[in-house]
This record gives sequence, structure tokens and C-alpha cells, in this order.
Amino acid sequence: MDKKEYAIFSTEIIVRPDDIDMNNHVHFSRYLDYFLAARYDQMGRCYKLSMEEFIEMGYNWVASNMNINYKRALKLGDVAIVKTQISSFNGAQVKANFWIYNKETNKLISDGYGNFTLINIKNLRPTRIPQEILDKYLVLENFA
Amino acid sequence: MDKKEYAIFSTEIIVRPDDIDMNNHVHFSRYLDYFLAARYDQMGRCYKLSMEEFIEMGYNWVASNMNINYKRALKLGDVAIVKTQISSFNGAQVKANFWIYNKETNKLISDGYGNFTLINIKNLRPTRIPQEILDKYLVLENFA
Amino acid sequence: MDKKEYAIFSTEIIVRPDDIDMNNHVHFSRYLDYFLAARYDQMGRCYKLSMEEFIEMGYNWVASNMNINYKRALKLGDVAIVKTQISSFNGAQVKANFWIYNKETNKLISDGYGNFTLINIKNLRPTRIPQEILDKYLVLENFA
Amino acid sequence: MDKKEYAIFSTEIIVRPDDIDMNNHVHFSRYLDYFLAARYDQMGRCYKLSMEEFIEMGYNWVASNMNINYKRALKLGDVAIVKTQISSFNGAQVKANFWIYNKETNKLISDGYGNFTLINIKNLRPTRIPQEILDKYLVLENFA
Repeated sequence: MDKKEYAIFSTEIIVRPDDIDMNNHVHFSRYLDYFLAARYDQMGRCYKLSMEEFIEMGYNWVASNMNINYKRALKLGDVAIVKTQISSFNGAQVKANFWIYNKETNKLISDGYGNFTLINIKNLRPTRIPQEILDKYLVLENFA
Repeated sequence: MDKKEYAIFSTEIIVRPDDIDMNNHVHFSRYLDYFLAARYDQMGRCYKLSMEEFIEMGYNWVASNMNINYKRALKLGDVAIVKTQISSFNGAQVKANFWIYNKETNKLISDGYGNFTLINIKNLRPTRIPQEILDKYLVLENFA
Repeated sequence: MDKKEYAIFSTEIIVRPDDIDMNNHVHFSRYLDYFLAARYDQMGRCYKLSMEEFIEMGYNWVASNMNINYKRALKLGDVAIVKTQISSFNGAQVKANFWIYNKETNKLISDGYGNFTLINIKNLRPTRIPQEILDKYLVLENFA
Repeated sequence: MDKKEYAIFSTEIIVRPDDIDMNNHVHFSRYLDYFLAARYDQMGRCYKLSMEEFIEMGYNWVASNMNINYKRALKLGDVAIVKTQISSFNGAQVKANFWIYNKETNKLISDGYGNFTLINIKNLRPTRIPQEILDKYLVLENFA
């Protein structure tokens, strides 16, 4: 039988001067911003369910935790390739993995994962991810 | 007769590592953030009309233009003293001046001014600043 | 005779979630970051003299003043088109104009200009822009 | 026998408007910036070995990984109390824990830990933390 996994999507992000810190490379917290920027881009473009649509449906996503490893650094002039992949769903939470590469060298810069919780905008409480949303995320790749 | 001017208020802001750019000093756009942070602090603390109260009243402030001069730079470990002063009112707009000092050296780091426009949250259009708000800003200092 | 002007170059910048503030649009100081990001991109790509080359030559550019007008706002999901144009040179200073457009609507979001000063890295003092650098910037467009 | 632990130090950080995102609370990556700002403050003020002194000694600290949990959110007008504590040393690495509280409510906003690696500035390689530096960090509290 085929082994199936959630699809990996990719977003290109240019390093901006305001991302650079005193060490002459992208500031450590900005890699999380690159991860989030990629998720937003991919929500609309790849899963066909943009953040704006979530908000219209009365939902919001908030971060519950983040784990990030720093392997190398991006510098000014570099372009980041940010790959993300749904890892699992659990009640109100989705776990997403990410990998940030240097576009030119193809080397891994940073990786990690984060859990996001679906919130009902009305009462600001976590809410079980509805099946119609789960279905949207079931974009599979076949690695058989 | 006394010469009267709008009061000058002062806010202390510590330089954070994420404010520092590749030149090892505070990134050029962050001085505007320091200005805005000082205005927010002073709105509630000095004029007794916080941003939250503006929003409850159905108003918002948006920047219309900003002009900033860079004289010296702040570095990590420095503390900024951000002074602001209302310069004038005109319809929906207020003009505010600012001066950013290095707390330790007392030297002028940056100065400038910005115009902010009062917006009616319902229609997102500029709205004449009401007299009761103007009255709140009439905190005068007597330099006679 | 032909009317000549300095060339206008264009850089595309995607709006990231960390650029958005409590007003649900790009934070007011970030438009200056977009301007600077465009200048860096265009220095290497259009004038063939990147910031890294300036630093190798013993120079650095620092901002002396910035003037920015806010006309409309960019939101999450928007793409900025940032156009910049050299306006004039004066001793150690170059004045550059900028215009930020919404890529989709083609509407003007923000415009303004800034003066940058060439610094000698050794003594950190302003230094007259050498002719070989001025020549690099003489990328003209013929609007005759 | 006494139970000894590394000291917990505390730094106060005001929330700035540029920290707030579209959800009207401090942007998720900024809590890591608050953690780092607290470490810098405490390095000089509490351990008597500032970042500047590290650099003069030919060292730098870089982040190797970060783990952060989000419990509640800080809003504009809030003040963060950022507590950090050395957890352990291992070769070139130090592990530090952090807890971010809302100063007014005393509620826990976020916690986590990060590993930082000591780098030799000359070769940019990890370097075993020297004993004289370890000694500086041996600021203990006695919880017996």
C-alpha cells in the first residue's frame, strides 16, 4: 500500500535590511516570521483557504508553541526558500513542520515546528477544527 | 503677556537587540517606532486620553506623513529619552514634534515631526478633531 | 535637446504578517524598510555596485533624513512595488525619491524621499562621493 | 545539604506599538526578542559581563535553538516582566530558561528555553566556554 504524507509547499522570501541584526545575519526571531509568512502564503495559494477566509468564517489561528533549530545563517542579499508541511491534527491544534533553505546554496538554514490552535473569534476559545477545514488540508503527496 | 506653548512630555525607551541593524546601531526606521511608542505612552499617562479610549469613542489615529532627521545613533545598551510636543491642530490633523536623546550623554540623536489624522472607525474617513479632545491636549507649559 | 533623468527602478516586496500592525495594515515605519530594501536590491542589480562592494571599498551609507507621505495602506496578501530614483548628488550626500504602489491595484500607497550620506568606514566621517561611484549611478533614461 | 540553583533575574520591558500585530497583541516572534533583550540586560547588569565585553574578548553568542510556549498574550499598554535563569552548561553551550509575565496581573504569558553557543569571532567556530566565564555565571540563589 502507498505511504502517504501531507504535501510540502514552498515560499520564496527575500531577506530585507531590517531583518539583519548586529551579527550581520538575519535576526534569530525573524526565521519564525519567515515560517509564518510562508504559512500565510501557502494557506491561500496551496490549500485554497486563506487567513482572510478563516476570519470571515469566525476563526483565527494562534501560535501555541514553537521550536526552532539554527544551523546556518542567512545574510543580506540571500533569498530564503521556506518549506512547510502539515504534520498532524489534534482537536483544535495543527502541528506544522518547516525547513528554511538558502536558495542559492540549497543548504539548510533552520528547521523546526510549531503548533497552532484554532480559535473561535466570538469567545476567543479553542475550537475543534471542523471536518470541512481538515478536508482542505488533505493535500497529499504520494511518496510510495 | 505670557508666552504659552504645548507641553513637552518625555518617555524612556530601552534599546532592544532586535532594534539593532548591521551597522551596530538602532535601525533607521525604529526611531519612528520610538516616537510612536512615546506618543502612545503619553496619550494615556500625560493627556489622560489613551489610544484605547480613542477606539472606544469610535476614533483611530493614522499617520499622514513623517519627517525625521538623523544626527547620531543609539547603540545596544543605550536608553532613549523621547520627547514629544503637540505643534498645531488643523481640522482632522494634529502635528507633533519629537526629539530623541541619549539618556546618558544627553545628546540629540534624532528629531522630526509627523502629522496624524483622526479617523472615524465606522467609515474610515478623516473627521474633524472634536473640541472635547482638543481640550484634553491643551496641557500647557508657561515659559514666560 | 533630450531631457534626461536618472532611471527609475522597481523592486517587488511581499507583505509579511510581521509587517502588519493593530490597524490591520502595514505598520507605518515598515514603508521606510521597504524603501531601503528596494535600494539595496537595486544597488546590486541595477547600478552594479552592491552594498557589499561599498563596504569592501571602505564605505558605508547612512540615512541623514527621511520624508514619507502615507496615502493608502497595504494589507496582508498585498505585494508592494517599490520604485526609487536618484534625485541629486551633493558632496557626500545622495537624495533618492521613492514611490510604493499596490501591485494589484496599481494605486500609490506612499511616497517620499531620503538623503543618504557616504561614510568612510575608517574614521566614520562623511566623505565626498568619488567620481567612479557617481559614474555608476549615471544610469539614465531618455524621456525626450 | 543546601539545594542550589542558578539565580533568576528579572527585566522590565514595555510593549511598543510596533510589537503589536493584526491580532491586537504582541506578535508571536517578539516574545523571543523580549527574552533576548532580557539576557543582554542581565548579562551586563547581573552577571557583570556584558555582550560588549564578550566581543572585546573575541567571543560572540549565537542561538542554537529556541523553544517557546504561548499561554496568554500581552497587549499595548502592558509591561512585560522577563525572568531568565541559566539552566546548564555543556561545552560551548549554555541553556537558559525564561518566563514572561504581565507586570500588572502577574500572570504567566509565555515560557520556554533556548540554547546559545559561544563562538570564537576569529574562526566563527564554537568554542568551549572558559572557566573564567563560567565563574561569572555562578551567581547562585540558595533555596534551601
